Amino acid sequence: MRILLSNDDGIHAPGLAALRWALAPLGEVHVVAPDRERSGTGHGITVHKPLRPKQVKFTDGTFGWAVDGTPADCVKLAIEALLPQAPDIVVSGINHGPNLGTDVLYSGTVSAAIEGIINGFPAVAISLASYESGDFKYAAAFAGLIIPGLMKGNNTRECNLVNINVPPGKPRGIKVTRLGNRRYVNIFHKRVDPRGRTYYWMAGEPEDSVPENPAVEADVDVEAIKNKYVSVTPLHFDLTDFQAIHYLQDMIDGQEFNIFEL
Amino acid sequence: MRILLSNDDGIHAPGLAALRWALAPLGEVHVVAPDRERSGTGHGITVHKPLRPKQVKFTDGTFGWAVDGTPADCVKLAIEALLPQAPDIVVSGINHGPNLGTDVLYSGTVSAAIEGIINGFPAVAISLASYESGDFKYAAAFAGLIIPGLMKGNNTRECNLVNINVPPGKPRGIKVTRLGNRRYVNIFHKRVDPRGRTYYWMAGEPEDSVPENPAVEADVDVEAIKNKYVSVTPLHFDLTDFQAIHYLQDMIDGQEFNIFEL
Repeated sequence: MRILLSNDDGIHAPGLAALRWALAPLGEVHVVAPDRERSGTGHGITVHKPLRPKQVKFTDGTFGWAVDGTPADCVKLAIEALLPQAPDIVVSGINHGPNLGTDVLYSGTVSAAIEGIINGFPAVAISLASYESGDFKYAAAFAGLIIPGLMKGNNTRECNLVNINVPPGKPRGIKVTRLGNRRYVNIFHKRVDPRGRTYYWMAGEPEDSVPENPAVEADVDVEAIKNKYVSVTPLHFDLTDFQAIHYLQDMIDGQEFNIFEL
Repeated sequence: MRILLSNDDGIHAPGLAALRWALAPLGEVHVVAPDRERSGTGHGITVHKPLRPKQVKFTDGTFGWAVDGTPADCVKLAIEALLPQAPDIVVSGINHGPNLGTDVLYSGTVSAAIEGIINGFPAVAISLASYESGDFKYAAAFAGLIIPGLMKGNNTRECNLVNINVPPGKPRGIKVTRLGNRRYVNIFHKRVDPRGRTYYWMAGEPEDSVPENPAVEADVDVEAIKNKYVSVTPLHFDLTDFQAIHYLQDMIDGQEFNIFEL
């Protein structure tokens, strides 16, 4: 198995090292990751400056590529230019901190995985759902266990993009989950600089809620983590709201405007 | 109606000016937009440096806020700190260039709208689906026509996030659409700098395909634009793949690994 490994905490992050060790027994691990932390980059890509990949030697003597771009840039560049052959799977992580609920939209870790599946490769994002704990042991071990299962038979056809969060400490079990809603309250700290100009730091506390009327009943990822379970969420990347298509068509048909009058 | 207007081409972009004029008859338009072009930022947010909003005077004597951050930053800061009251709707655009298919995941324009709906406000993203044409007339007029319809009655409960693309020239009509798949081929141009180091420019041509087995039949956005129709796509922000939940549960149940052995 050829594994493309990336992340958004940067090529020297301990979470990436832990995952590199856990995946090594499964096959060739090719690391292409940002040269420094890129948290909160969402699915950003770099189009206004060129990318410069640089070979990096790890302490065990193996090599990886550090790229001065976003996680999505790394996956694109790896697939199109840096890897000798196409990967069998794209793995992103282990992120230091949770990627739960609505926050997956901001997540560089998840965006690397989404970039994988857009290009036709099954992909897994994995996060340690804690900023305090730096113990990646359980998350790494779980990745090493679940990835061969996902790659077996036709699993990747049915479920080809998976977001995993692992609680700090020993997990109580595994839950297959759906995404919760997470919005932030009191997010800005307002300050004034020595020259009298106002500036704002983004911070805030998460406020969680459960999206109603799910298509399929399932635990919510945020709750699973609170209860110390590993959360495994199948994702897709089609943002179409199919439930609203007929509604929107009726609304537009019922409008009094005519496009030809524009 | 209080409208929060943002974009990703920057506060001085002509597409924003066109939309500002088109929305003015509908109510108060509050502009909070990036201080410069932020294309391709995806749903990035700025957490490692503070944000500095700066008041900008437009040629008509009205004011807006320019923020040294991403479109998502602008919407967050507007809602939490800059606007005197909560908006009734968040509008993002007019983007100069298409935001179609899978590309919506990279789109700063769409991310501003998604940030609106995460915070509980209905939102519309609007793009002129052409890099060549700079004529925002039809796109601006269409926004002015559809937004009052979306805000009428309970429409926003059923359909609260809409992605609009308007073809260059006079449109032939309107299609309610689903997102297509768009991936890029030959995306990197490899070059060597005067010091012998390799660098890569991201570019490439889009390769479009139609996602199979949609939950509801509908035209694909990319096709609608090719055929010179306005494309109106309802979006949501729940990336859960509900179709894969049972499958993943069965796979995990059938695994030979035990979480307690970790």
